[in-house]
Amino acid sequence: MSTNITDISVQPSTELFIKMVVSNWELQNSRVNGLLDKLTDEELATETAPGRNSGVYLLGHLTAVSDGMFTYLGLGERLYPQLDHIFLKNPEDAGLDKPSLAELKEYWTKVNEVLTEKMNAMQPDDWFKPHSAIALDAFEKEPHRNRLNILINRTIHQGYHIGQLVYLVKK
Amino acid sequence: MSTNITDISVQPSTELFIKMVVSNWELQNSRVNGLLDKLTDEELATETAPGRNSGVYLLGHLTAVSDGMFTYLGLGERLYPQLDHIFLKNPEDAGLDKPSLAELKEYWTKVNEVLTEKMNAMQPDDWFKPHSAIALDAFEKEPHRNRLNILINRTIHQGYHIGQLVYLVKK
Repeated sequence: MSTNITDISVQPSTELFIKMVVSNWELQNSRVNGLLDKLTDEELATETAPGRNSGVYLLGHLTAVSDGMFTYLGLGERLYPQLDHIFLKNPEDAGLDKPSLAELKEYWTKVNEVLTEKMNAMQPDDWFKPHSAIALDAFEKEPHRNRLNILINRTIHQGYHIGQLVYLVKK
Repeated sequence: MSTNITDISVQPSTELFIKMVVSNWELQNSRVNGLLDKLTDEELATETAPGRNSGVYLLGHLTAVSDGMFTYLGLGERLYPQLDHIFLKNPEDAGLDKPSLAELKEYWTKVNEVLTEKMNAMQPDDWFKPHSAIALDAFEKEPHRNRLNILINRTIHQGYHIGQLVYLVKK
């Protein structure tokens, strides 16, 4: 008797859930990296659409948001908290001094490297603890708002800005 | 003794994990709906950036991709398979006849309504079965490529195009 693929099921495990979420996050990171490899510095400095954020600003923004995950996930000190002022709390047209593109690329790579290392060292159950920005009573009512959920949310956020960054690729 | 929030953990359950993924999908749907409410028909007919897809094309594209989930998740017949030819297999500049915006909005709403109903009727373990497009030997090696993973992937895909649709909102 042959096995029918629709009869197969894998017993869901905590490790499997984590693998699903982390692999999707890694996929989005690799898409950003693919764009960084493909686009010239000049293209990255360009607006993604008229009057919209440049590639450089979006790279700083994505780096700041990923760096913020050290706090949300309880993984210790952030690497580049100074990015928030420039890339999260203020829009690009505030005209603040930005790090160079070379520096931003280095920060982006470093944040992902250290984050990956620390996430790999987490105990599976740690992912199901509340993240740092949720109040205890809210978490008791909505226990799905845990650390793994933050990673899902940040992965979607990366997808959102990748959709804008691709507009820098010439047709 | 008071409870320290970082000591709290919720036993990860299959139901909790499904809730995390489905609620993120619903959040992206509600963002699309918010944009559809906010943008005029004229704005939706506009290109999201010079030479890029219009809002109408992206709405058709998102509807076609969500409609495709009936197949991937083993939830029966698709509602609007005819959309694939116009919004998935051909680019907008192929100049194919499109349904009207009113029709596309209706299809989008209907797909999400029926999909939500059918997803809610799934048994938790069903989500961990292989999706319809993966081969048995591939699934045995990579059991995280299940139906719930398709929903994560499609949620990120929605985020990607929402990042483009927001460019239709006047600053």
